[in-house]
Amino acid sequence: MDIMDIISKKRLKQELSFEELKYTVDGFLNGSILDCQMSSLLMAIVLNGMTDRETFDLTEIMLNSGATIDLTKIDGIKVDKHSTGGIGDKTSLVLVPLVASCGVKVAKMSGRSLGYTGGTIDKLESIDGYNVSLTSEELVKQVNEIGCALVSQTQELVPADKKIYALRDLTGTVESIPLIASSIMSKKLASGVDKIVIDIKVGQGAFMKDVESAKKLAELMVKIGKNKGKETICVLSNMNQPLGNYIGNALEVHESIDVLKGSGPKDLIEVITTLASLMVQLGKNISLDEAKKEVLDNLKNGKAYQKFVELVEHQGGNVENIPISSHIFSVKSTKTGFVTNIIADKLGELERKMASNRFHQDGLIDHTVGFVLNKKVGDYVLENEELVKVYLNTNDINVKEVLDCFEIEESSSPSLPLIYEIIK
Amino acid sequence: MDIMDIISKKRLKQELSFEELKYTVDGFLNGSILDCQMSSLLMAIVLNGMTDRETFDLTEIMLNSGATIDLTKIDGIKVDKHSTGGIGDKTSLVLVPLVASCGVKVAKMSGRSLGYTGGTIDKLESIDGYNVSLTSEELVKQVNEIGCALVSQTQELVPADKKIYALRDLTGTVESIPLIASSIMSKKLASGVDKIVIDIKVGQGAFMKDVESAKKLAELMVKIGKNKGKETICVLSNMNQPLGNYIGNALEVHESIDVLKGSGPKDLIEVITTLASLMVQLGKNISLDEAKKEVLDNLKNGKAYQKFVELVEHQGGNVENIPISSHIFSVKSTKTGFVTNIIADKLGELERKMASNRFHQDGLIDHTVGFVLNKKVGDYVLENEELVKVYLNTNDINVKEVLDCFEIEESSSPSLPLIYEIIK
Repeated sequence: MDIMDIISKKRLKQELSFEELKYTVDGFLNGSILDCQMSSLLMAIVLNGMTDRETFDLTEIMLNSGATIDLTKIDGIKVDKHSTGGIGDKTSLVLVPLVASCGVKVAKMSGRSLGYTGGTIDKLESIDGYNVSLTSEELVKQVNEIGCALVSQTQELVPADKKIYALRDLTGTVESIPLIASSIMSKKLASGVDKIVIDIKVGQGAFMKDVESAKKLAELMVKIGKNKGKETICVLSNMNQPLGNYIGNALEVHESIDVLKGSGPKDLIEVITTLASLMVQLGKNISLDEAKKEVLDNLKNGKAYQKFVELVEHQGGNVENIPISSHIFSVKSTKTGFVTNIIADKLGELERKMASNRFHQDGLIDHTVGFVLNKKVGDYVLENEELVKVYLNTNDINVKEVLDCFEIEESSSPSLPLIYEIIK
Repeated sequence: MDIMDIISKKRLKQELSFEELKYTVDGFLNGSILDCQMSSLLMAIVLNGMTDRETFDLTEIMLNSGATIDLTKIDGIKVDKHSTGGIGDKTSLVLVPLVASCGVKVAKMSGRSLGYTGGTIDKLESIDGYNVSLTSEELVKQVNEIGCALVSQTQELVPADKKIYALRDLTGTVESIPLIASSIMSKKLASGVDKIVIDIKVGQGAFMKDVESAKKLAELMVKIGKNKGKETICVLSNMNQPLGNYIGNALEVHESIDVLKGSGPKDLIEVITTLASLMVQLGKNISLDEAKKEVLDNLKNGKAYQKFVELVEHQGGNVENIPISSHIFSVKSTKTGFVTNIIADKLGELERKMASNRFHQDGLIDHTVGFVLNKKVGDYVLENEELVKVYLNTNDINVKEVLDCFEIEESSSPSLPLIYEIIK
């Protein structure tokens, strides 16, 4: 077998065999296939696509490229959740304890920030003392004891996906539905769960810019799940503005706690209860209505928050110590009108810039900075009224850059649904 | 400007500006754009194409990426010839002295072997003492003195094309008509000639496998030439079997001398007289018939061979000393029938393997080895009759591999024309 023939086949839009895909992934991992060869193949895949069979095979090959997690020592059905990532997306922080409080086991592995979107692990590390690195044994033990764990994905899991993703990020070959689907599903399948709920974010603040492509991605991931006997449900949710009102690591933990205590903003609650109900339905094999009732009850009766405290304490964190910056700057509207757009990705980039400013040398990030939105899309704002509070550590905030994230018009535009579709 | 945006534009089949193309080529040359980024862009170009404007711009940028040769100190019209490369293609060795003997100046720069096709420079080096490396000043001086020179392309010429071509060769991104056209034309234009004749080889032993794509390539190169005010004519010639009967560096020089002395095989003579007549027509601004008469005369009356001797002597070579191996093995047919196919690229690969066997450590090649065909396509062969003589230096020839290059059938197949089309 030869990588040149494999590239040539894909250039001519021919189907690659399992053996050819495995040869490629193995060779790329061991260095016998060069980055430049892999990236020309990846661009050929981006432009000429992959069949379902190729996508199933690539998923299988990547999931077996490293260690896999064995969760069979945890009793019951393990349900996992994944989000394709968005601005202000703190749903995992709420979902893990909430679903566990309903009696469904959740052994969740999360990632760090990617591009302009935040990462659950960075958010967790804003909790003083929280240990994101458990061994597989510790993970299993904790889920058996308290019903959930929320940890960092280990380095040994799907090394092929890691190396391929890093190259795609560098070579403009991210935008491929089969590559995105196999990347996500290989990680989920390697983490040993039984059933999967995936939140596909759609809109300007997300990788998927339109509902049509998000739907294709959803259908493909559902198929991959079926192919491996793991029931998968995808939720298409709106990411045309930040989710909730808080953006920034520690700030998002605080907003999550609000939701877990039964309050919090309407949009965030709707996405969370939708995802949680599906997870509980899958995990307990009950009707969606029954599941939804349990979820809403546990947000009201304190059980969800209680589970969160238990989770944080088990992983060494101090729920009373989640510092946020005391240096706050209020950005006020320069005109009166309706907020018609909040450019989520630009706001996400500004937050990332603020978080990395102080500690850029050692790669550490400042968890205490971020934004708290006072107005969201559809709200009416007066000239000089506060749009957003900026929590910062230096004085180098550019007010114009923040204001540029808000579009304000005389008349409001029709609002889009928050949940577009559920695909199973 | 950002390479990620440039890759993304080409992925979406948008046209790149001159500035974007220049940024890309410059960045790739200085290392700020990585091989893996360039190769994903190249695959996007292979699959999504380039407009004529992009192709003109890329040619212009590459031709100005290094030194260019100034031939203005040579009087008269300088005509150049290029071949896209084939098996047994020794036309340059004959054309340069032949055309010069008709009074047209030829300052020809040639390359080394590429893939399975031979290179004129490797062939010249089989002549004892021949110096392929002249400075620009020496080149100009010699062409003014004797009317021609045949030298190696200098390293300083079109470094961008060199670096891009090496990457394309490694990443399966060779097969793109605009990339091939701009690569060839940037080199030809940088070498300072006035008019260009290009021999595009078509068939299994060539880069262009079919007449249709060869025609597209021809039309594009003619357009690029026009765009730069340099008249360009393309000849589409058949490369479904080796050209002539001799394959191998020194062997091909011997066959070239046969042609220069007025003998030699029919197919080789036809291709050479076609190309030479066009070059003489362009160089002297006379009719094609007049040009052809001069060419044929000079092959018969010894003037072409005399010019060859003059050329070789001027460049330090000894025309009496072109050693070939004395170790000869005759491969005989295992059946009786018509030769319907000689797989040129396979035969080329075998020759390259034999030539590199002995000296593989220091990268030097053995010029004395090769093949002399006793039968060509359409010929009738008896069982046990000689198909081909193998000139070798070791005993490691695999007779079956040689026999596999010949297809012999009971009935002959219709013969293809040798010259498909002339495009101007």
